Amino acid sequence: MSKEITARSQDYAKWYNDLVLKGGLADYSAVRGCMVIKPYGFALWENMRDVLDRKFKETGHQNAYFPLFIPKSFLSKEAEHVDGFAKECAVVTHHRLMNDPNGGGVVVDPEAKLEEELIVRPTSETIIWNTYRDWIKSHRDLPLLINQWANVVRWEMRTRLFLRTAEFLWQEGHTAHATAEEAIAETVQMLDVYADFAENFMAVPVVKGVKSPSERFAGAVDTYCIEALMQDGKALQAGTSHFLGQNFAKAFDVKFSNKENKLEYVWATSWGVSTRLIGALIMAHSDDEGLVLPPKIAPLQVVIVPIYKGEEQKAALDARVQVIMDELKKAGIRVKYDDNDNARPGWKFAEYELQGVPVRIALGARDLENNVAEVARRDKKTKESLSLDNLSGQIIDLLDDIQTSMFNKAKEFQQASITKADTFEEFQAILDGKAGFVAAHWDGTAETEEKIKELTKATIRCIPLNNPQEEGKCILTGKPSKERVLFARAY
Amino acid sequence: MSKEITARSQDYAKWYNDLVLKGGLADYSAVRGCMVIKPYGFALWENMRDVLDRKFKETGHQNAYFPLFIPKSFLSKEAEHVDGFAKECAVVTHHRLMNDPNGGGVVVDPEAKLEEELIVRPTSETIIWNTYRDWIKSHRDLPLLINQWANVVRWEMRTRLFLRTAEFLWQEGHTAHATAEEAIAETVQMLDVYADFAENFMAVPVVKGVKSPSERFAGAVDTYCIEALMQDGKALQAGTSHFLGQNFAKAFDVKFSNKENKLEYVWATSWGVSTRLIGALIMAHSDDEGLVLPPKIAPLQVVIVPIYKGEEQKAALDARVQVIMDELKKAGIRVKYDDNDNARPGWKFAEYELQGVPVRIALGARDLENNVAEVARRDKKTKESLSLDNLSGQIIDLLDDIQTSMFNKAKEFQQASITKADTFEEFQAILDGKAGFVAAHWDGTAETEEKIKELTKATIRCIPLNNPQEEGKCILTGKPSKERVLFARAY
Repeated sequence: MSKEITARSQDYAKWYNDLVLKGGLADYSAVRGCMVIKPYGFALWENMRDVLDRKFKETGHQNAYFPLFIPKSFLSKEAEHVDGFAKECAVVTHHRLMNDPNGGGVVVDPEAKLEEELIVRPTSETIIWNTYRDWIKSHRDLPLLINQWANVVRWEMRTRLFLRTAEFLWQEGHTAHATAEEAIAETVQMLDVYADFAENFMAVPVVKGVKSPSERFAGAVDTYCIEALMQDGKALQAGTSHFLGQNFAKAFDVKFSNKENKLEYVWATSWGVSTRLIGALIMAHSDDEGLVLPPKIAPLQVVIVPIYKGEEQKAALDARVQVIMDELKKAGIRVKYDDNDNARPGWKFAEYELQGVPVRIALGARDLENNVAEVARRDKKTKESLSLDNLSGQIIDLLDDIQTSMFNKAKEFQQASITKADTFEEFQAILDGKAGFVAAHWDGTAETEEKIKELTKATIRCIPLNNPQEEGKCILTGKPSKERVLFARAY
Repeated sequence: MSKEITARSQDYAKWYNDLVLKGGLADYSAVRGCMVIKPYGFALWENMRDVLDRKFKETGHQNAYFPLFIPKSFLSKEAEHVDGFAKECAVVTHHRLMNDPNGGGVVVDPEAKLEEELIVRPTSETIIWNTYRDWIKSHRDLPLLINQWANVVRWEMRTRLFLRTAEFLWQEGHTAHATAEEAIAETVQMLDVYADFAENFMAVPVVKGVKSPSERFAGAVDTYCIEALMQDGKALQAGTSHFLGQNFAKAFDVKFSNKENKLEYVWATSWGVSTRLIGALIMAHSDDEGLVLPPKIAPLQVVIVPIYKGEEQKAALDARVQVIMDELKKAGIRVKYDDNDNARPGWKFAEYELQGVPVRIALGARDLENNVAEVARRDKKTKESLSLDNLSGQIIDLLDDIQTSMFNKAKEFQQASITKADTFEEFQAILDGKAGFVAAHWDGTAETEEKIKELTKATIRCIPLNNPQEEGKCILTGKPSKERVLFARAY
């Protein structure tokens, strides 16, 4: 083996870090809490971004770009918003360095203090709604459907590669509507876009739901979310879509004249997913040999490794591989021929396993004679001998099958990991056992939610959409409840 | 006319701002020196980015992402580099806000001071080379060919939309090589990529050259550039490619073991273009009616406006337009059917002229009878009646013709704007007259260069590649010179 990976059973957190670092996805940086996204990780993010971007455009959104900096006073305009973000933000106070006249090297120039501090955006509602005031005058300017791909900074104290970093990449949609109904429909539509992306591209099944009030986005009326389940039984919030009501319109005085020529405040949504999704992807599918990536977003879908002795065998393989490559590329498959002769086939096999390349084709001189190739699928770690006749067609089918079966496997795991608990003892036992989502009654108060969290480290992940109504009693207080909500320990 | 545009002859700077603001490309923001890139402007940037990104990947580069923040001490490691950027940078000093205990609202929490200040990246050589130290060990790790799409911040005091903003979007390539020759070849290759992009996509002719030492990038051994010419006779640096020698490798101690197993410092390049290119695009082509965009990167290439009375005429037009749209879309043309009945055709014509849409098709009920459409090309402001038979084929040819003729027009202007001056009086007269590039002898000293700048506001834009060698005398000092260099006033 080229690189040692910690087993999940041994140390799950270390296994995850090994995959990120040794799989070539990201690296630590010299800046506290910030990471470097390496080329392989960035290629994965580009594939994810491109799919999402297409979906946003298909649903009528346009991209734009707003400033990185937010004046401090803007954050304060929406009371809950500032409470949510003020405690962990990067503050720019000066605009110049100078040589220390006392010989202390390069220092901040005290003369270059900003009149008002600027916050590096933790999210852009405030700067965007301040701009929308100029853009929205009439109902004819609505809906305004804008998305931004950007970096944001939240000064997290405990960071983990991809899952929680001080700086991360994301997209944030910010839309403006004439009515509450339209804004809610947009919120739900974008949640569906996220769920579709998670399930049909990342092969990660999700539960769609609504957050409890205490887990809402700071400044939202309602936060919708998709919740994914990791292999260790912990949940991960994979995307959120917020109905913001008129909160930001009121904070930034954004009104429009309606069809009756009366001024009304505008209704808002915002929604986002981030590079955190890469963490979800890794933990949903990967194994002790390395990453397992779903074909639809894998940077490399197929790798071909030649096995030969001497130039003559190599030339014969090259010729045949060229045909296969051409056919696969024509079908839009991302394929690489690794004929680097500095590494042995066995080393390459391990390396591509680690990198999670969905399909590996090994082709030797004898295979050519027999008109076959050895085809290994990463997800199931199985190999089969396939005829070279219409190999590309078979590979394309195989990629489809891998995509589907990765989803099905994760879906089975998810379904088996939603457990009902009717008492606090059951609840605790499930969390300490197989974990996963625990469906339990809750009395609807923030106090109980907080207490359960203190006692068990589990939080309410969401109240699922179309949740069955059912009489029951809160597992902690015994007070009456009308539906179960999903609890879990979470990333 | 829907929106009034200042004429170039009246106030060139105001004309430019009118186009940016009223053409819907960008807007001012509440943050000093930062702008909002509006959806139409961002769509233009996306088209430019996609072409460049493809070219980078075709030349073997991969994208990655490095932290937004640079520790203050990193900037100081390369002496010239810190001199170049320390005077205009955004400095993060704190990581938390708090409620003022004295009731002064939200203030910076003095307890949350960073141990070391962080600089918002003005460019990323330092943080990247600090990372490369871990990535590069052997000659087998080279070349390392990485690009990053990112936002950067330079605290400019005098800003102008797109041309000079405190925050801007760009790409920065950072490559590492085993030899100086390879690094220089990379520098020149990327200059060629930029020149090809400027000329064949933006339709903006450029002069390729090398900067004089005083105009070099801070930390570079040589800065190569492409220089474009605006309609007012001022030059604009449209892209730079730097040979960095071993400067950053030495500053960050990045060594590799060569094939002889000896440790050597790595050779570096960096190269970038930014949203500034949008400013160049606007000023190279546009006119008093609005933007003129080259088809290859225009967000919208063709707009179709129906002219009708009543539902029946509209239905007939709709049916015919659908066929044309389908054909154009199939050919990859970005086309829009504007049948919004809230606006009159005349208003729409003016609006699309302002937005610089290359081709406008007007189709009326009588046109249908006559089997023709009125086709207007934005660049030459001409109209012609084209047969509906194979209209899409004719439009595709027309788009090609517009692309070519926009370049040819700009190229003619550029060629007519390179003037030789042999005395300082001639030099001054040209600058005060038609301006443009002035090819003049220079004694090669930074003092003379500075003096000429003080006297005339003209700078040395570049020493053209493959510059003819010619004996002459410096226009200022009369000292001997072996070649003419290109001076101009510049953005």
